[in-house]
Amino acid sequence: MSRHASKPALGLVLVLAAVAMGTLHPGPVSGAEPARTDGLLNLMPVPASVTPGEGRFRIDENLAIGGQGAPAGRAFKGAARFMVRLAGRTGLFLTQDFLAAQTPPGERGINYRYARPGQVLPTEDESYTLTVEPSGILLDAKTDIGVLRGLETLLQMLSADEKGYYFPGVAITDQPRFAWRGLMIDVGRHFQPVEVIKRNIDGMAAVKMNVLHLHLTEDQGFRIESKVFPKLHQLGSDGMFFTQTQIREIIEYAADRGIRVMPEFDLPGHSTSWFVAYPGFSSAPGSYTIERKFGIFAPTFDPTNEKIYPFFDAFFKEMAGLFPDPYLHIGGDEVEGHQWDANPAIQAFKKKNGLADNEALQAHFNRRLLQILIKHRKRMVGWDEVFQPGLPTDIVIHSWRGQKSLIEAAQKGYQTILSNGYYIDLCQSAESHYLNDPVPADSPLSDFQKTFILGGEATMWTELVTPETIDSRIWPRTAAIAERFWSPASVRHVDDMYRRLGPISVELEELGLLHLKNVDVILRRLAGGPQIKPLKVLAEAVEPLEEYGRHGQTTYTSLSPFTRFVDACAPESLPAWRFGKTVGRFLAVKDAAAASDLRDTMTRWKDNHPRVLAILAGSPVLAEVEPLSLNLARVSGIGLEALGRLVKGEGQPAAWVDQQRKVLAEAAKPAAHAELVVLKAVGRLVEACAGTAR
Amino acid sequence: MSRHASKPALGLVLVLAAVAMGTLHPGPVSGAEPARTDGLLNLMPVPASVTPGEGRFRIDENLAIGGQGAPAGRAFKGAARFMVRLAGRTGLFLTQDFLAAQTPPGERGINYRYARPGQVLPTEDESYTLTVEPSGILLDAKTDIGVLRGLETLLQMLSADEKGYYFPGVAITDQPRFAWRGLMIDVGRHFQPVEVIKRNIDGMAAVKMNVLHLHLTEDQGFRIESKVFPKLHQLGSDGMFFTQTQIREIIEYAADRGIRVMPEFDLPGHSTSWFVAYPGFSSAPGSYTIERKFGIFAPTFDPTNEKIYPFFDAFFKEMAGLFPDPYLHIGGDEVEGHQWDANPAIQAFKKKNGLADNEALQAHFNRRLLQILIKHRKRMVGWDEVFQPGLPTDIVIHSWRGQKSLIEAAQKGYQTILSNGYYIDLCQSAESHYLNDPVPADSPLSDFQKTFILGGEATMWTELVTPETIDSRIWPRTAAIAERFWSPASVRHVDDMYRRLGPISVELEELGLLHLKNVDVILRRLAGGPQIKPLKVLAEAVEPLEEYGRHGQTTYTSLSPFTRFVDACAPESLPAWRFGKTVGRFLAVKDAAAASDLRDTMTRWKDNHPRVLAILAGSPVLAEVEPLSLNLARVSGIGLEALGRLVKGEGQPAAWVDQQRKVLAEAAKPAAHAELVVLKAVGRLVEACAGTAR
Repeated sequence: MSRHASKPALGLVLVLAAVAMGTLHPGPVSGAEPARTDGLLNLMPVPASVTPGEGRFRIDENLAIGGQGAPAGRAFKGAARFMVRLAGRTGLFLTQDFLAAQTPPGERGINYRYARPGQVLPTEDESYTLTVEPSGILLDAKTDIGVLRGLETLLQMLSADEKGYYFPGVAITDQPRFAWRGLMIDVGRHFQPVEVIKRNIDGMAAVKMNVLHLHLTEDQGFRIESKVFPKLHQLGSDGMFFTQTQIREIIEYAADRGIRVMPEFDLPGHSTSWFVAYPGFSSAPGSYTIERKFGIFAPTFDPTNEKIYPFFDAFFKEMAGLFPDPYLHIGGDEVEGHQWDANPAIQAFKKKNGLADNEALQAHFNRRLLQILIKHRKRMVGWDEVFQPGLPTDIVIHSWRGQKSLIEAAQKGYQTILSNGYYIDLCQSAESHYLNDPVPADSPLSDFQKTFILGGEATMWTELVTPETIDSRIWPRTAAIAERFWSPASVRHVDDMYRRLGPISVELEELGLLHLKNVDVILRRLAGGPQIKPLKVLAEAVEPLEEYGRHGQTTYTSLSPFTRFVDACAPESLPAWRFGKTVGRFLAVKDAAAASDLRDTMTRWKDNHPRVLAILAGSPVLAEVEPLSLNLARVSGIGLEALGRLVKGEGQPAAWVDQQRKVLAEAAKPAAHAELVVLKAVGRLVEACAGTAR
Repeated sequence: MSRHASKPALGLVLVLAAVAMGTLHPGPVSGAEPARTDGLLNLMPVPASVTPGEGRFRIDENLAIGGQGAPAGRAFKGAARFMVRLAGRTGLFLTQDFLAAQTPPGERGINYRYARPGQVLPTEDESYTLTVEPSGILLDAKTDIGVLRGLETLLQMLSADEKGYYFPGVAITDQPRFAWRGLMIDVGRHFQPVEVIKRNIDGMAAVKMNVLHLHLTEDQGFRIESKVFPKLHQLGSDGMFFTQTQIREIIEYAADRGIRVMPEFDLPGHSTSWFVAYPGFSSAPGSYTIERKFGIFAPTFDPTNEKIYPFFDAFFKEMAGLFPDPYLHIGGDEVEGHQWDANPAIQAFKKKNGLADNEALQAHFNRRLLQILIKHRKRMVGWDEVFQPGLPTDIVIHSWRGQKSLIEAAQKGYQTILSNGYYIDLCQSAESHYLNDPVPADSPLSDFQKTFILGGEATMWTELVTPETIDSRIWPRTAAIAERFWSPASVRHVDDMYRRLGPISVELEELGLLHLKNVDVILRRLAGGPQIKPLKVLAEAVEPLEEYGRHGQTTYTSLSPFTRFVDACAPESLPAWRFGKTVGRFLAVKDAAAASDLRDTMTRWKDNHPRVLAILAGSPVLAEVEPLSLNLARVSGIGLEALGRLVKGEGQPAAWVDQQRKVLAEAAKPAAHAELVVLKAVGRLVEACAGTAR
């Protein structure tokens, strides 16, 4: 089998050209991503270099995979998983016993090879080349982690034509742009059991992410077994914590997929749950209970209490032994210091030690922690706030508050990770995350300084999510973030990203992720039966309130139900996004297909309201969605009226336009902790009427 | 709060009367179970005694639950889970911190009490009384296991009216008919990881089952860690096994829900996977590999090899320490003895010891095993085949081949469990399982002998299921079996059972069970995108081939994909069942609503075919469903034609009827390992035309 020379990513260029020319239109509004065709067009993240080749590698039952490596090895196991997923998608009864024997299948088949086993470290080589020719497939990598990355690419390339399934001919050369491509999961505020973590590790692997950051301790829960200080998890977790056995299982599971697991112990604030067991370590007297509410709370470790340091020494010794990753995150965020301010002894300590303010006191605490971490051979990672004078440059600054601290830290020689802009809990658009670049084109950093920016992490804070809903808050938007971290900086065509998000979302389901299927589960429970179609139609046009909007509506606690309509709504509605695109296309070129699509969609939305009301009659919990449904019907009526005029080339009187603007503004009010997200697009139809009014 | 005297199950009587009078018709065909109304009508299993009371207990945010028992106790944890599920269904932000404090809430609230902690033993008391009055709820039980059973009943009673959610006033006295109400899961043929087991334990608890029987070893896999003989799981499992830590986790999880865990080690046959590590223990020389195919295989332990007994002694000592249940299942089924017949030494041993046949040799083996089990304080359970002369009556016979052995064994003083008739892997109707009674009305057993029949077990053999599909093979049909085991023998109204199966199925989803939602997952994967409506419509009319029909179509192995259309089809289509009932109602009373429903349904089926074809074009794996879809369209056309005539009171010429009979017979041929299941009902319409032909 010969190898193509590496060339610019022609396939990608073709896709982008097609999108730019409008030939790849967004498809009908209602969930209608195109079915599987040429998988090369669906790759996510886009590889560094894609050179379409000649011909097609046909897949049949005799397809075999093979390479070096023992059956217990990472590549072997990855290849076995690949075969299961391929068989799952194609329904082929593969004859190879891929669990027992993967000898290289010769020319005809999938051959993988690698120079050495990889280590799950941020410095590891994850590159690969993938050559598909009609006669065979060669996947070549420096490490077996590179093999895993290449297998994910190959699986995404699965295509079908009238003859059956195939992989399109191609030569791909690929490597990540950033070494640190993470997903943080907060298991403190709402505990997420092992199966949640595992299926999300699989999701991460599918889009080539490589760091799972577990936020293990919070005011609301201490989520890891300590054998040295068992009261920590026994009293601080309501019985919901990872055993050390489970942590080892997670670490092994992740390592098998080329993913690191970095633990975080948030200190000295966000620590109420520690004080349930050890109230004496806090900065104020009294007893403590596990916090149920969300926010920033006063309980904080007392840095002046010398007893805490031997405690942390023993604790981090234990945790350093449990987590093999060289990095350990100590949190450090949102320390407001109320307990410190109220404690005369702490005030005296500050004065005595020349610590001007609470930031200086926290830096003092961090230096003490750092000594302990160094002793146990861990590199310290901390949120923005740990970036204080007096700390050595071998700590890593994790920026959550903005690019500013990221840049300052890199300029001062600190390695940094970006999470600002990747807060997926805030239910913002995939676009906003996608265009947020750890090293944007206009970065003031020098090329050398840029090397200090290791990458980024999507952060899944869990105030408002449970194991039932968490996947829908992570996926598919995190696939767009993964592409930002992996693909060349030039890959930033938003419409094409959205187009690919559809197929990727369906592919992620095969890993057990619940982001699509649990919508129906929640709606069935609310409706008390299987008739949920009207609720699904309504959900197309609705999104949860963005940012911290939901907290303004009620006081959520960790015991609140997250099973309402808003919890079934996707953070970003792809049908609503497509509706907006279709409105744009209609207004730009007035094509009949777009008009027809808009008419169908808005008619469905308009006619939906009585059907919703019928369900509401038997489900008091759904009463809150009535305004959303009514407004959707009203707004769709307005949109239909505007569309009708525009199709005829007519406008509307100014008074009509004014009137509709008011209705749209009224419909923008949140209800059920959610909002209608099709108002802007309908508004454009209305404004177009104003523009053409005569 | 006063208590009603226990009376006959009036509520149930009312329901049955309504069904009999036809006022509770089956509802429209397409998945249209009625939404939540009066929860008392939906109880499953039906309690022993239900006396509807006055008024409604209103549920609001201040609802509190409380009783005795420490936070770590079974009742406390069960009550906390109850509150989570109740909040989930109602969306109420309950103010009680139900994880931390459950002091008795006084009159107003849910009070539970019990005489003593229960033990998870088949002899344990699971009875409870539940009294709901507008002013408060009292749940009273002998044990905390009884409390759990009562909480499940209460949750099923959740009702709604225009004022909100409530529990209807009632007095329930309840206890199980049988002490042994089991679900067997075969984790040998296809391994089922911990999360599969846990969510199914939750499902079992919801319908008051109390025995999880884990079939741990098979030709295709040895699925449990042995620290004494680690080669067993290391070489015999492809890495897919339960660690001992996981087993303990499962046992604790089950015990928290009042469920026993009984292990099975299938011996001396079905044991290929043992011989991968220990070929010398088999009855034929050579090396062994894990079996991939399904069926009955030759490899069998050699009962004449004295080395196996110390091995089993050490092995069962280890397993007896791991599993606290007093019962241990040694399998014993399907030993054909081919290896024994071919081994001269074994033949000589038989002759020397006067063992007339292989059954006698197996009985010899069983007696040796029994001694070992007795030594380790376990009671032996075995399939039918272990019922041989010479074994003491303190073993339990598990009948899988028929009622005959069950009856014989009981007559001879053996305790017995019935699984014949509860083989849920065979994709038969809920009705067939439901009407299968361990002690039918015409049982030849005396009342005393009947006490030897402990109950039964649904058996989930896993040749054709994976973790992705297993829930749909278990649920909701197993809820009908659970009712057979729990409720009075007189509860056997089939239509009412089917009516209740709908709501129960939706309720089971809140436990994480995948039986409903994974249909869409499989179809989306097959279609390569989210547009699956036509496939769902087709699936309404299709069921997997019953019994062992699928094995006749191809050679399945444990590595085959179980991701095809047939795997998305429910074992029993409830829409098809409702269609049949509606045809019956139409033919009986010719009512217009039934005719209209049938017309809508068959029109949808008829119009579906071109839409299916559009999906097939991009999905080679779906090509196999084309005949099913085409036949459904054809058959629906015939049904519509017949219906049209019948509505007018007209018939059809005999030639037409003959012709349609042929088409229907042709359409009965299986395709894609599945079959159309609406042919019989359409056939009744056709025959009715013949009956009215003039």
